[in-house]
Amino acid sequence: MHVGIVGLGLIGGSLALDLRSLGHRVWGMSQRESTCQEALARGVIDAYYCLGSPLPPDTDIVVLCPPLDCIIPTLAALVPYLPAQTIVTDVGSVKAPIVQGAEALWQRFVGSHPMAGNNNKGIGAAQGGLFRGRPCAVVAAAGAELGEAVADLWRQVGMTIYFCSGEEHDRAVAWISHLPVMVSAALNLACDREANGAVKALGEKLASSGFADTSRVGGGNPALGRLMAQLNREALLLALDHYQASLQAIRETIENQSWSNLENLLCHAQALRQHYLGQG
Amino acid sequence: MHVGIVGLGLIGGSLALDLRSLGHRVWGMSQRESTCQEALARGVIDAYYCLGSPLPPDTDIVVLCPPLDCIIPTLAALVPYLPAQTIVTDVGSVKAPIVQGAEALWQRFVGSHPMAGNNNKGIGAAQGGLFRGRPCAVVAAAGAELGEAVADLWRQVGMTIYFCSGEEHDRAVAWISHLPVMVSAALNLACDREANGAVKALGEKLASSGFADTSRVGGGNPALGRLMAQLNREALLLALDHYQASLQAIRETIENQSWSNLENLLCHAQALRQHYLGQG
Repeated sequence: MHVGIVGLGLIGGSLALDLRSLGHRVWGMSQRESTCQEALARGVIDAYYCLGSPLPPDTDIVVLCPPLDCIIPTLAALVPYLPAQTIVTDVGSVKAPIVQGAEALWQRFVGSHPMAGNNNKGIGAAQGGLFRGRPCAVVAAAGAELGEAVADLWRQVGMTIYFCSGEEHDRAVAWISHLPVMVSAALNLACDREANGAVKALGEKLASSGFADTSRVGGGNPALGRLMAQLNREALLLALDHYQASLQAIRETIENQSWSNLENLLCHAQALRQHYLGQG
Repeated sequence: MHVGIVGLGLIGGSLALDLRSLGHRVWGMSQRESTCQEALARGVIDAYYCLGSPLPPDTDIVVLCPPLDCIIPTLAALVPYLPAQTIVTDVGSVKAPIVQGAEALWQRFVGSHPMAGNNNKGIGAAQGGLFRGRPCAVVAAAGAELGEAVADLWRQVGMTIYFCSGEEHDRAVAWISHLPVMVSAALNLACDREANGAVKALGEKLASSGFADTSRVGGGNPALGRLMAQLNREALLLALDHYQASLQAIRETIENQSWSNLENLLCHAQALRQHYLGQG
């Protein structure tokens, strides 16, 4: 296979590393030529191209890995140079608006969302095996054959594929990805509201793994959090409705000192989490 | 030092292991004699006693490690057998009501809250080094000398000591420990409210480290969550007030499509978290 990767950050660079180690040819493209040069020097890619130059005519798949709000503009800029048979996919964390916009620009487009990553950024963070054992959503509105070709790419780097519509994907990630960001960010903001300086300082000293875990995704990339909310607003607001109602239900048991009701809610939460994470 | 440990679970057992490896003598006590026998066989303790039998007269410190709601009843049952000079401490995650109740039963009582642990339970989970590098709150209402003796015990197993009042402790842990449990439990409960079965199933498949981390403490021991809320109700309700206001502020930016305001809130959340966790 000959694969082009546009955007050589953690995801794009790690994908390139895995594909090359499987024997595929990989070309890269980045806004900054210095990133391409570093990727080439580190053996992450076989070659690189700049926007405006012809692309290899035997390119099978191009994977768009720029920031979420640059996926459509990047595709629009690439279209004049794409070989006719090339399949294009992306790695954006929102799918319905991206798949809709991208299909209007390029018929052979399939949306992807590989659920992999860590807190590191840039080509220096690229690592082999990042995708192994992780799930990947594939939105193949353009047809099953194109969808299978893209699914095969992700399967080769170790991912489990879930085909779905863009709308199903976006509602699902509103719950398990976008809602947690807002819930966790609110925890960070709330702790700053403690008025007693001694108590606040003590809290910072005593903060342990429970606080670290619950507050983690709310301390992530603010620009990405904003874009996820912008592109998935309705599903996120619906998830927030349910979340606020669930928290209020917990709160009322504490206000009313209905302790066995609180314990029942916490038991239910425990059982649900084991179910979600496949430990049930 | 001769130390008695009452309650041989993860915390009690791990403390016993560390103290013995430092050369101290450690006796144990547990509701179930089989737990004592296992602890003795595994070399966690030097000896064990059952409630009602005389305790070693040279016991310097007794550490109460039973479940949170059993600390005061356990102390009440032990008092007739405690040597007069023995200092008693506990490991409960709420301090003001426990210190108040315990001091009425035993003058030489100091409250402790070692911030260490994991999801494992029972004597089989006991491990060396559990406390190393972790913070420990010490409430020495009975005097600085007793407080220093208890602080020294925790320092010997590698903890950093923060002296505070019971009220300061309870307000601080409401923010960084009890609030996260409720916030995280509500996330688990909310995700169950998705009405579309396909979306719900997809969410479960795609759930990744972000969901796993944010939902973790909300999937913990329900009985402990209930007791923390019961014993720290006012501080937890105050923290919930602020949390609900913070989340509503985030929600309003999404409702009103005030995207730069949302990004500002998320930037603030990111900066606060780095500060809380000492990465700032």
